[in-house]
Amino acid sequence: MKKISIVGIGETVMGRHPERSLHDLVREAGNKAIEDAGIDKKQIDALFIGNFNSSYLCGQGHMGPLASEALGLENIPTVRTEGACASGSLALRMAMLGILSGAYKIALVGGVEKMTHQPGATVTSAIASAMDCEHEAMQGFTFPACFAMMANRYFYEYRNVKREMGLCAYNAHQNGLLNPDAQMRKEFTLEKILSAELIADPLSLFDCSLVTDGAAFVLLASDDVADGLRSGRRRVDIIGQGHAGDTLTLAAKDKITSFSASRAAAAQAYAQAGVGAADIDLAEVHDCFTITQIINTEDLGFFEHGKGGDAVAEGITALRGKKPINTSGGLKSKGHPIGATGLSQIYEIVTQLRGEAGERQIAKADTGLAHNLGGTAATCVITVMQGR
Amino acid sequence: MKKISIVGIGETVMGRHPERSLHDLVREAGNKAIEDAGIDKKQIDALFIGNFNSSYLCGQGHMGPLASEALGLENIPTVRTEGACASGSLALRMAMLGILSGAYKIALVGGVEKMTHQPGATVTSAIASAMDCEHEAMQGFTFPACFAMMANRYFYEYRNVKREMGLCAYNAHQNGLLNPDAQMRKEFTLEKILSAELIADPLSLFDCSLVTDGAAFVLLASDDVADGLRSGRRRVDIIGQGHAGDTLTLAAKDKITSFSASRAAAAQAYAQAGVGAADIDLAEVHDCFTITQIINTEDLGFFEHGKGGDAVAEGITALRGKKPINTSGGLKSKGHPIGATGLSQIYEIVTQLRGEAGERQIAKADTGLAHNLGGTAATCVITVMQGR
Repeated sequence: MKKISIVGIGETVMGRHPERSLHDLVREAGNKAIEDAGIDKKQIDALFIGNFNSSYLCGQGHMGPLASEALGLENIPTVRTEGACASGSLALRMAMLGILSGAYKIALVGGVEKMTHQPGATVTSAIASAMDCEHEAMQGFTFPACFAMMANRYFYEYRNVKREMGLCAYNAHQNGLLNPDAQMRKEFTLEKILSAELIADPLSLFDCSLVTDGAAFVLLASDDVADGLRSGRRRVDIIGQGHAGDTLTLAAKDKITSFSASRAAAAQAYAQAGVGAADIDLAEVHDCFTITQIINTEDLGFFEHGKGGDAVAEGITALRGKKPINTSGGLKSKGHPIGATGLSQIYEIVTQLRGEAGERQIAKADTGLAHNLGGTAATCVITVMQGR
Repeated sequence: MKKISIVGIGETVMGRHPERSLHDLVREAGNKAIEDAGIDKKQIDALFIGNFNSSYLCGQGHMGPLASEALGLENIPTVRTEGACASGSLALRMAMLGILSGAYKIALVGGVEKMTHQPGATVTSAIASAMDCEHEAMQGFTFPACFAMMANRYFYEYRNVKREMGLCAYNAHQNGLLNPDAQMRKEFTLEKILSAELIADPLSLFDCSLVTDGAAFVLLASDDVADGLRSGRRRVDIIGQGHAGDTLTLAAKDKITSFSASRAAAAQAYAQAGVGAADIDLAEVHDCFTITQIINTEDLGFFEHGKGGDAVAEGITALRGKKPINTSGGLKSKGHPIGATGLSQIYEIVTQLRGEAGERQIAKADTGLAHNLGGTAATCVITVMQGR
C-alpha cells in the first residue's frame, strides 16, 4: 500500500461538556489537528466525519457540513460515516480510500459525540440502535446484556476471568490518571472494582465503559505532501489497515468468544503492513467492556485464544508491560465518545509514536495498532501505524 | 478517471410499506441489483449504504451489517454514509473511491429509508436534523420554510415562476404515471396544482416532494471485471463525478438562488467526464421542491440563471422535450425515500441509457446525469453516466 501520513492530531478533553455544542467540540479538536500539522486550511481537500447517533441524541444529522462550517472550510466535500462505535474509524477508512484513489491529497478526519446531556434511558435507547432493533433491541436486549452473554460463554469455553476483567479496569484507570484528556482520572483498588454492583451478570460497574462527550480529529496527507511538511516531529505513517464485518445479530454469529470481523481485519492490516502481532509495540483496543478487551487481544494474535486473561494477570498488558494495551486509559477511563472513539485511539498511538505521551510514554514505541469495533462486533477497522 | 461500470440495478416500488421492515426493503432492492448483474454474491467485496435517519425514525443505526446480513453477504466490510438527502449518493461516491483506490473490484451500493409509519410531526423533526439544529431547527425553521425563502428571493432577483413551478409538478406527475415504481401515479391538472393549499408561501402542496418508504441499489464493478460480465444489456459507465459542500446554515451562504455546492460538483463532474451541459441527454435532478428543480437546472448549466422557468414553460424539460428532467417522476411523484433517493436517480438514468424505460423511454439516451442535494444545498453529488 502507498503510505499515508498522519500529519496532525487534536482532541478535546473527554467527559461531560453540558455547556458545549457539537460545533464547539468539533471546532476545538479540528483546529488543534490543523494547527498541529501547520498547514493552511485552504489546503484541505475533503472532510470525513464519524458520528454515531447525534440524530437521536441532539436532533442533529448532516454532520459533514456542520463541521466544515464550524471550522471555516469552504465548499469542500464532506461525508458522515456511521458504523456504531466504529463510526470514527470508518471516517478514517473512507479518507484513506479517497487519498489512495488520487481524489484527495489532504483530508481532515474527525469524530464527535455528545451524549451526557440526555437521561440514561435515552442514552440506552440511542446505543441500542447499534444492534438489530427489530430482532434484538425490541426484544429487550441491551449492550451490557449482549457482552455479558459473551463473557459467560467465554467462562464456559475457557475459564472464569472475572478477576482479570477487573484488572483490565484497574490498568485502564491507572493509565487514565496519566492522561490529561481522560474523563475519569481516579484511582480505584482492585477490591473496589471487583466488589462493585452487577450490571449484567457477570459484568459489574467497572466492566463497562463510560458515557462521554468529546471530539477527536486527525489530518491525513499523501506521502508526497507529507514530505513537504516540516513539523520537527517524528513522522507517523499508516502502513496497513483492515476493515471487515460480521452479521448484525448476535444469534447469527458462528462464535461469540472470538470476533470474525476482528480476525479478518487484523489479517488484512498485518498483511498490508508487512508486520505481525509480535511487532506491535502498543495497541489501543476497543474495551467497550473488559471482556471485549480480553477477546480483542486474542483476536489480534497478541495472545492465544483463552489466554488473554493470563496475559493481563501477568502484567503484560499494563503500561510498563511487554505489550501495553490502552495506554490512553481506553474507553473505560479515557471515555467513549462513540463517534470520536476510533480517532481518539489514533490520537493516542500517534502521541506515543511521537514520544509525546508524557508520564504515560512507553519506552519503545515504533509500531502501534488501533482496533475499533462497532456493535456486537459487526464492524471492525484495524489500523497499523509506524514512526519513521 | 478510470471508468467504473454500473453492472446491476434494483429498487423497490416507492411508497407506503407499513408491513415491510428495513430488512425487507434492503433484501428486495439489493437482490434485484445482484441478480440483474448476474454475479455470485461471493464476488462482492464491500457494501456501502446510504441512510438518512432510521436512527430516529426506526431506532435503527448500523445499517451496514444489517444490510449485509439481510442479503447473506458474509464478513464483507460495510459502511453507512449520511449527508441528509444526499446520503445515497455519498454511498456511491465512497464506493467509487474504494474501487478507484484498488481496494475493491465489485461494490454493492444501496440506500434505504422507512418514514411513513411515523406521524407527520415526527417526520418533520427527523428531516429537520438535516439543517443546523441549534441555529435553525430550534428557532422554528422547517425545510419548506427554507426553500420558500429561496423561492421568494428567486422571484425578487428574477421573476415570479410560481406557474412554472406548478408545471414542474405537472410534468413530474405525468412522468410518474409511466413509472411502475412511482409512489403517486396520478394525473393532476395544472389548475388543481396551482390552486392547492399553501404550505410555506409561495410553496403550495404540489411544490413539495413526498414522504416515502423504499430502497434502491446499484452494483459497481471496475472496468476489467465488467468486461467479463456478459449481460446482453448495454453497458453503462460512470464517466465523471463531482462532490462538493457548502455551509450547513442558510444564513452563512453567499447566495440562495444558486447553490455553490451544485456548481462546484458540476464543474468537477463535467471536467472528469469530458462532456458539457449540452451533451447531457437527460437528467434526474433533486426536486425536493419545485423551485429546487428550477435552480438545479440552472446550476447544472442547462439553462441560464433566471431562465430555468422559461425552459419549463417551453416544454424543454418535459418527457418529450429537448432536455427531459426527472423522467422517473422525480422526488415529487416517484417519491423521496431520503437515503435511497440518490441511488433511485441512478436507477432511472441506467434504465433509460439501457433503453429499458418502457413507455417513458426517451428517444436519445446516451449520456445522463444524476444530481443529488442534501439539506439546504450543503452537500451535492453529481454523477455523469454514459452507455456504450
